[in-house]
Amino acid sequence: MWLDLHEIFNRLSHDPNVRAIVLTSSGNRAFTAGLDVQAAGSGVLSQPQSDAARKANLVRRHIVEFQESITAIEQCEKPVICAIHGICYGLGIDISLACDIRLAAKDSRLSIKEVDIGIAADIGTLSRLPHSGVPFSWIKDVALTARDFGAEEAQRVGLVSGIYDSKEGCLKAAMEKAALLGSKSPVAVLGTKQILNYSRDRTVADGLNYTAVWNAAYTQTQDMTDAMTATLKKKKTSFAKL
Amino acid sequence: MWLDLHEIFNRLSHDPNVRAIVLTSSGNRAFTAGLDVQAAGSGVLSQPQSDAARKANLVRRHIVEFQESITAIEQCEKPVICAIHGICYGLGIDISLACDIRLAAKDSRLSIKEVDIGIAADIGTLSRLPHSGVPFSWIKDVALTARDFGAEEAQRVGLVSGIYDSKEGCLKAAMEKAALLGSKSPVAVLGTKQILNYSRDRTVADGLNYTAVWNAAYTQTQDMTDAMTATLKKKKTSFAKL
Amino acid sequence: MWLDLHEIFNRLSHDPNVRAIVLTSSGNRAFTAGLDVQAAGSGVLSQPQSDAARKANLVRRHIVEFQESITAIEQCEKPVICAIHGICYGLGIDISLACDIRLAAKDSRLSIKEVDIGIAADIGTLSRLPHSGVPFSWIKDVALTARDFGAEEAQRVGLVSGIYDSKEGCLKAAMEKAALLGSKSPVAVLGTKQILNYSRDRTVADGLNYTAVWNAAYTQTQDMTDAMTATLKKKKTSFAKL
Amino acid sequence: MWLDLHEIFNRLSHDPNVRAIVLTSSGNRAFTAGLDVQAAGSGVLSQPQSDAARKANLVRRHIVEFQESITAIEQCEKPVICAIHGICYGLGIDISLACDIRLAAKDSRLSIKEVDIGIAADIGTLSRLPHSGVPFSWIKDVALTARDFGAEEAQRVGLVSGIYDSKEGCLKAAMEKAALLGSKSPVAVLGTKQILNYSRDRTVADGLNYTAVWNAAYTQTQDMTDAMTATLKKKKTSFAKL
Amino acid sequence: MWLDLHEIFNRLSHDPNVRAIVLTSSGNRAFTAGLDVQAAGSGVLSQPQSDAARKANLVRRHIVEFQESITAIEQCEKPVICAIHGICYGLGIDISLACDIRLAAKDSRLSIKEVDIGIAADIGTLSRLPHSGVPFSWIKDVALTARDFGAEEAQRVGLVSGIYDSKEGCLKAAMEKAALLGSKSPVAVLGTKQILNYSRDRTVADGLNYTAVWNAAYTQTQDMTDAMTATLKKKKTSFAKL
Amino acid sequence: MWLDLHEIFNRLSHDPNVRAIVLTSSGNRAFTAGLDVQAAGSGVLSQPQSDAARKANLVRRHIVEFQESITAIEQCEKPVICAIHGICYGLGIDISLACDIRLAAKDSRLSIKEVDIGIAADIGTLSRLPHSGVPFSWIKDVALTARDFGAEEAQRVGLVSGIYDSKEGCLKAAMEKAALLGSKSPVAVLGTKQILNYSRDRTVADGLNYTAVWNAAYTQTQDMTDAMTATLKKKKTSFAKL
Repeated sequence: MWLDLHEIFNRLSHDPNVRAIVLTSSGNRAFTAGLDVQAAGSGVLSQPQSDAARKANLVRRHIVEFQESITAIEQCEKPVICAIHGICYGLGIDISLACDIRLAAKDSRLSIKEVDIGIAADIGTLSRLPHSGVPFSWIKDVALTARDFGAEEAQRVGLVSGIYDSKEGCLKAAMEKAALLGSKSPVAVLGTKQILNYSRDRTVADGLNYTAVWNAAYTQTQDMTDAMTATLKKKKTSFAKL
Repeated sequence: MWLDLHEIFNRLSHDPNVRAIVLTSSGNRAFTAGLDVQAAGSGVLSQPQSDAARKANLVRRHIVEFQESITAIEQCEKPVICAIHGICYGLGIDISLACDIRLAAKDSRLSIKEVDIGIAADIGTLSRLPHSGVPFSWIKDVALTARDFGAEEAQRVGLVSGIYDSKEGCLKAAMEKAALLGSKSPVAVLGTKQILNYSRDRTVADGLNYTAVWNAAYTQTQDMTDAMTATLKKKKTSFAKL
Repeated sequence: MWLDLHEIFNRLSHDPNVRAIVLTSSGNRAFTAGLDVQAAGSGVLSQPQSDAARKANLVRRHIVEFQESITAIEQCEKPVICAIHGICYGLGIDISLACDIRLAAKDSRLSIKEVDIGIAADIGTLSRLPHSGVPFSWIKDVALTARDFGAEEAQRVGLVSGIYDSKEGCLKAAMEKAALLGSKSPVAVLGTKQILNYSRDRTVADGLNYTAVWNAAYTQTQDMTDAMTATLKKKKTSFAKL
Repeated sequence: MWLDLHEIFNRLSHDPNVRAIVLTSSGNRAFTAGLDVQAAGSGVLSQPQSDAARKANLVRRHIVEFQESITAIEQCEKPVICAIHGICYGLGIDISLACDIRLAAKDSRLSIKEVDIGIAADIGTLSRLPHSGVPFSWIKDVALTARDFGAEEAQRVGLVSGIYDSKEGCLKAAMEKAALLGSKSPVAVLGTKQILNYSRDRTVADGLNYTAVWNAAYTQTQDMTDAMTATLKKKKTSFAKL
Repeated sequence: MWLDLHEIFNRLSHDPNVRAIVLTSSGNRAFTAGLDVQAAGSGVLSQPQSDAARKANLVRRHIVEFQESITAIEQCEKPVICAIHGICYGLGIDISLACDIRLAAKDSRLSIKEVDIGIAADIGTLSRLPHSGVPFSWIKDVALTARDFGAEEAQRVGLVSGIYDSKEGCLKAAMEKAALLGSKSPVAVLGTKQILNYSRDRTVADGLNYTAVWNAAYTQTQDMTDAMTATLKKKKTSFAKL
Repeated sequence: MWLDLHEIFNRLSHDPNVRAIVLTSSGNRAFTAGLDVQAAGSGVLSQPQSDAARKANLVRRHIVEFQESITAIEQCEKPVICAIHGICYGLGIDISLACDIRLAAKDSRLSIKEVDIGIAADIGTLSRLPHSGVPFSWIKDVALTARDFGAEEAQRVGLVSGIYDSKEGCLKAAMEKAALLGSKSPVAVLGTKQILNYSRDRTVADGLNYTAVWNAAYTQTQDMTDAMTATLKKKKTSFAKL
């Protein structure tokens, strides 16, 4: 399933007809209850391997491949809005943190559940959370205790940036936001996502330098003239595909 | 205008009579409505250049020069308090993020407006925001949608650290804070600003090392004895210029 | 005293009987009022040294040794919960920031006091705060002004992740949280602390890579099977020492 | 062709029957004369695109995909020995720098040719050369002038670590070295390659930390006992596949 | 004098008539004997300042300003060839290391002289040398002992990439190389310098990413078609100014 | 033994009577043949531990403690000259790479031997070599093959910066160099070592910044006046202890 996710987001990234993406779950009970513990139990970790080093290498390859699948969401050229509802455990947190904007329904129950199955979360949660503008003391609390927390707590600490009365309300808000992003210049939207992700991981000086090189190319666009004109005339405009 | 800003902050940085700086706008309607779109439209980007690579280089030089002007605020040795009111769009956000402390009047309307003119913000906003202790999901939301947000939202997410009923109230609070900073040891104030900015961009280990080298010099000051004595005696003291 | 702290946390780090640590103060009035200014005044900085460079080197060695003592808390393999109450000034902030989870009693009065004794805080506060998920404008405000702030303000900005009516209530909550952490797999708890601290200081890509190598070894544990079984059967389990 | 290269090295990386890889060219005249300029001329850069920003994005995607193909050699878990002979221009340098060990026949003519076709080399040469232990003044000289240099100069500056009288001699030496690497513990060989590549790009402190975590898993191998015994008894041993 | 140097290189950087720069000394005896010790002795360090912290700040500002002047050579958009001859001490090494290509006359006597005047070299030598592809054991030797070394030793370790019988011969070679660089596409030359300098200081992954963004803009140039055509037709071509 | 080494270098680092250190071996046959394989075989790795994760943690702690012992040489405030002779295998390379200057007798036989005992070298060799200004292709060759190489090869690639006919000659040269370093300003020598080590691991910009802060304190020394005077008068001077 996660290999499919990888493939899907790679395609969406380059598909010129796509302007923004909403990621949610079709079920009613859960965004995702996380990894299927029984299925995982029959996977790479349960394979008999007398040599711990060789087993370590199989495990490492497996984790890297799994991480790359989820990172495909972050690397997707189009903005990804995550609509969370119901149970959002373990892998659900990994996935939502790779998205750009997180919205949640009020009934959401979130948990960095991995400590409760005897492991440190390894598909992205522990690497992305410290760079998410969320209090580090709170991160340590929820990651070490694996305790549940709700949508309101998630909003208060900044993990999600909007909460809604129901799954439907959350999805509606996500779709409207996606439509709004889809009406903007795709050149400007792409650059904004790329530069924010780049700068998050680097010094301000490096971020500025990268921005200057990026915009040396990406400001040479008709979108800029069109958008300026539209802004001055307070009219809508439409932008070519990217 | 921004070249003047660069020059002014370089001078303030080394002027021994300056202890703290308040940056605000003289107008009543706006802190700044951002770049003058029509003036910019007649600038470097509108120059005819048949070769896109050569045009890219002109654009890159222009952005770097512009960025350096705003960065002069951050590099200024004296603390800079930004008093925001009214409209604060685009370049206004870039400027305020290069300041140390952001205060805002309740009527403030802020927006990372650049996506609406077809570009990714390139004068600092996208590089400084991810290091400002502000939720990353919220950053992506306001940067990608270019939507307005008010002073209360800015305070809730941590972008500003004080809000006031009016422009006058905001300015008064900024001036009082500046006076307070001006009454402290300028050696201690400079070191605190420098080490915080240095550490923001580097590992904790590197921050600690830099701090030790910095204070190896800067604790050899009369200010420390004077400040300790004043603290023990609960008296005021005054410190020499820096 | 801080050399003892260093030694104590190094022992706790490797002591297999220890699962989680609560750090608090025995007094009623203060978590700590910070460095004893008069004692410090008779220390390395007051030694007569005609050569400012040689004195600088003594100061630098002293700061590095002091920093390493406090960093021992952060590097301790076991999670450390800090229960703050009463006065928590200067060194108290340095210490609490090296802990994993910060809780506070409502009566807490905190201050990054160093500017008021003429120096930039040099034992960790200025290096850890910008990576604590706390608004940077607020950090600059409290670090530059040295003003007091209370438990509620500390919770609002995210510096502490729980506040309690009294010192006793805070300590009780800390002990309960420690007991909860102590009931989890120590392999999973260690990995979670290590990877979060590692990732805080590095890029997301580096964090992911490190996580994969870490879990290549640390998922080869009986704890995982036991914890999964316990989770499926909704039963408690106990884990071997680490 | 480079997409195939990507696919091939990904497979070799995980194929347990592969212990070491020799990369050379089947032709007699050239290792590779670099990118086919005429074919490239009909590629992405020649596509009509009125919007320079949209064209920039196509070009960027293309370069990234191309880079990833060559980087697959560096990321391959097995050591890769490059046997250079004859003409080795442009892409030939990019490819050889992604290999672990570079050997060359005396007749080799190498050139960072890209400046002569109007571009900065973008498939890895300019990013890997400054980390190859080769004099930076020499790098600038050959990269900026695009001048030819021979095997002896390449060896003198350290770009290649062995030169041979003929293509056949070079290939024979490469095959012997590959056989030697293939006789070693694959666990030790993998770890050595991974840690060297990791450390090249990071601080010594980070390299040490990563090494400790890596070997926490990878020293738990039967290979170590077998290799130690063999070393003490001066006998050969064979190691299980990885 | 160094403020003039700063100003001059900033102008050369943007002057479209300049394609490559040769930096040498007009005198016969020395490239430069380094800082005028007596003049320096009457400068900032000799100013009476009773407070060591305030003096430290004056010194720091002075060093930063001096460093920025020399760094202007490295940041200059045009390649800079340094022709060394005779005495090249102290500041001479700082300057030459900020150049792209170093050539030397056989009579050159070089020395990192600063230890002999009681200071660690602070205008760039100690920061650039470890990234110059020169053996670190040798760097420590010459930097700690302040001993003289000649052109042949400098070439053997890779500090200079060409040596010549006389000052005239060295200058002639430098001028010819500058002419050669001046005949290439200025777009390709600029990109090659920029990407090499960027990559020297960063990971290979970051270097590749930056390269892709750079060339997204800079391959959209007529130079590429012209240079390809010229290469295929083995004819000379001339490129527009940058 | 390595815990003693740690303790010894920590003491030498702060002992004011020590100006420079020569590290060699008392034996005639070997600098060191590396870790005692049989002793190591009875150490932490041979302890029965049914849980591979718990064993991994014991191994990790052991490696980190071992690494810190060797790193004490690098962190020692005084310059350390390593005089290599005879067999220098495994740990011998780790140790020599933590020294500042490496000299070798002609009879030296060096080898990164670890692959031959089934592990990746983990006490520093693989982390320090890529930052030693030595060709990366050569590093991969000797680290992956574990082959012997002699003093001349070590000098040719830059691993050692002086070779001598005999152990005695090497030691004599090391002692003379130490005496020379001991005659210089200890303030200047310390700064040079510290800044070179700092800059090796960081960008040039960060190196420059650190240097400016370092010298803000360390140029305020009598040594500078004395050394300048001595240089102008071509007389010897002696410097106070550090």
